Amino acid sequence: MIVTGFQAAGLAAGIKKHGGLDLALIVADNPAQAAGVFTKNRVKAAPVLLSRRRLRSGQAQAILINSGNANACNGPRGKEDARSLTRQTARLLGIPETSVLAASTGVIGQPLPADRMKAALPELASRLRPEGLTEAAEAILTTDTKAKTAFIQEKLWGQTITLAGMAKGAGMIHPDMATLLAFVVTDAAIDAAVLKNLLFTAVDQSFNRITIDGDTSTNDTVLLLASGRAGHPPVTEVTAAAPFGRLLTRLLADLAQQLVADGEGATRVYRVVIRGAGSLREARQAAATVATSPLVKTAMAGADVNWGRIMAALGRSGARFDPERVSIAFGPQVIVENGLGKGEAAEAEARKLILAGPITVTIDLGAGTFQDFYDTCDFTEDYIRINASYRS
Amino acid sequence: MIVTGFQAAGLAAGIKKHGGLDLALIVADNPAQAAGVFTKNRVKAAPVLLSRRRLRSGQAQAILINSGNANACNGPRGKEDARSLTRQTARLLGIPETSVLAASTGVIGQPLPADRMKAALPELASRLRPEGLTEAAEAILTTDTKAKTAFIQEKLWGQTITLAGMAKGAGMIHPDMATLLAFVVTDAAIDAAVLKNLLFTAVDQSFNRITIDGDTSTNDTVLLLASGRAGHPPVTEVTAAAPFGRLLTRLLADLAQQLVADGEGATRVYRVVIRGAGSLREARQAAATVATSPLVKTAMAGADVNWGRIMAALGRSGARFDPERVSIAFGPQVIVENGLGKGEAAEAEARKLILAGPITVTIDLGAGTFQDFYDTCDFTEDYIRINASYRS
Repeated sequence: MIVTGFQAAGLAAGIKKHGGLDLALIVADNPAQAAGVFTKNRVKAAPVLLSRRRLRSGQAQAILINSGNANACNGPRGKEDARSLTRQTARLLGIPETSVLAASTGVIGQPLPADRMKAALPELASRLRPEGLTEAAEAILTTDTKAKTAFIQEKLWGQTITLAGMAKGAGMIHPDMATLLAFVVTDAAIDAAVLKNLLFTAVDQSFNRITIDGDTSTNDTVLLLASGRAGHPPVTEVTAAAPFGRLLTRLLADLAQQLVADGEGATRVYRVVIRGAGSLREARQAAATVATSPLVKTAMAGADVNWGRIMAALGRSGARFDPERVSIAFGPQVIVENGLGKGEAAEAEARKLILAGPITVTIDLGAGTFQDFYDTCDFTEDYIRINASYRS
Repeated sequence: MIVTGFQAAGLAAGIKKHGGLDLALIVADNPAQAAGVFTKNRVKAAPVLLSRRRLRSGQAQAILINSGNANACNGPRGKEDARSLTRQTARLLGIPETSVLAASTGVIGQPLPADRMKAALPELASRLRPEGLTEAAEAILTTDTKAKTAFIQEKLWGQTITLAGMAKGAGMIHPDMATLLAFVVTDAAIDAAVLKNLLFTAVDQSFNRITIDGDTSTNDTVLLLASGRAGHPPVTEVTAAAPFGRLLTRLLADLAQQLVADGEGATRVYRVVIRGAGSLREARQAAATVATSPLVKTAMAGADVNWGRIMAALGRSGARFDPERVSIAFGPQVIVENGLGKGEAAEAEARKLILAGPITVTIDLGAGTFQDFYDTCDFTEDYIRINASYRS
């Protein structure tokens, strides 16, 4: 996973209680065009505030990321820690302080071990190498059970364009991107303003359509750096950049799928598709409500085709529909038609499909022509175990 | 638990797969003044539609309740079953069909075993007796581990007024009263229009302030029957009835507390109090968001004073506040002041309080003068176990 113009590294700086890689650095050889999307949570971590401010310039050259500590709710000290860590990083790299972005994930409300982190920065910088993105992808994880990376190479504008992405998630995944970190680097030459536009659209179609537990966080950050080294003339208009936008959406959707599959304690992944809604807003609302319902999620954990819980979730979603016009299918197997169950044989068939692997639950509201979807995973006893003991 | 003018009974009619009492009847000696509150879910069970329609008269004389089957999403057959069961009940009691109300709880989308239920009605009617309310309270349960009843006797208007209530809940408890059944009988003489007013207020202060898993249902029903046998002159105005309203609120709050304590798999009960909100709406929103957060609930299961998760929940609640003005206390122990943690000693102290018993989590947003609360319980591995296997 190499992208022309970028180097990266990761190491164990002693931030995580139980050890493991926890500090990562991604660096562009030259100032890169940059865009970001951040949490909408009113409580924003110090690195979120710092990166958002610095991104106004549309340029960035490095991203310092730590796991094991969110650096959120740490008051002035948290802000100063974020600033001094990026300052130190800038000095080591010989670049302006304001071109270093930061992201953190982990426990909220505990000061960063900033001294330990600063002491580790020289070694981190010395480890920087083009193939280091994989190592960085390891260092940004918290309760994830595996690293999430995605890589795309395609001909575009007469050149081979490369995109590489990494993400960390697990738990707290929700629209508006709760506790999600994702970093994408590309050698495409695209203006920051255009990148921002494409990134918003891509995030909306990927990370904003997944949910693990309905909760949201203080630290969500998606950053995109473009080195412009692919060799094509710079793209400065959104319409011209559309082919790249599609690649970016594909890359982020790939990462989003990996996040859902690695949801805390998850054993099953499924997609909730709403069709026949009266508006796009209602389609999305209905999909989100069904996808976040704890009762639907626990039923899926038990491979129980409990469509009554789906009906109940639809009924409180705010979407307008007539219950007696609703149909529901698990994969190709219809289990509800015009609001009535198709019987035990149909449910037994659907149960087999749930047990067989990833499944799409398609719900037709019979109320219009709009559709939307959410990807989610089941709720298992392990989810509770992981979250009850996260800090201990 | 006896209230002048009422009889009740419960028995096992074979509705529940694994046996147990599942059919209950509450009957007034004479037509009673009656009021009800029903689910706002767009998908409403057949008995909800029937009872809501019949309550328009302000009078009722009997309530037929079954557990083990929700009679929801059963189409025309569900409606016909609800009608014919209440018709049969009316015949046995020698009262008009329209004065019999119905309520159901259990699995959605499976037709009622109506024949079996009808066959059991004569025995159910023959068992009616003044002390039968306790038996009825047993027969309305589903995954509840124990019956919930409450009883109040107080002097009012020169007479002793009695109120008796029963409820079933566990799981799916949520504002707007998801999957909650509650029945209250009283010998007070109060007009139906006044009763309705008092019941709405009491429900808002009790059942609408509890949450177990944030999900909602198709069957929620609270019914109140007043026999008027206490001997005082009938009360026809809301202001005059206020003392009774306070007793009713106390009775329902008692039942609501019992519901939360018996939440599916719950090991801990806690109250989330929001103070210092900019508006009443924001106070309630913030309390509800913190109380329904799966991450806060699992932290409570682990007795983990994870206030970062509380901050994150507040931040996505929609309430306006400055994170650096927030304070949080567990019981009397302050753990966050001006957005900053008070340190490990304070958290260790708070952890002891969580382990010691029911606790109040008080959050001051520092943004105004409004306050509100929610009662809730923790999320444990047993919650998943119960809900993954509910139908199997």
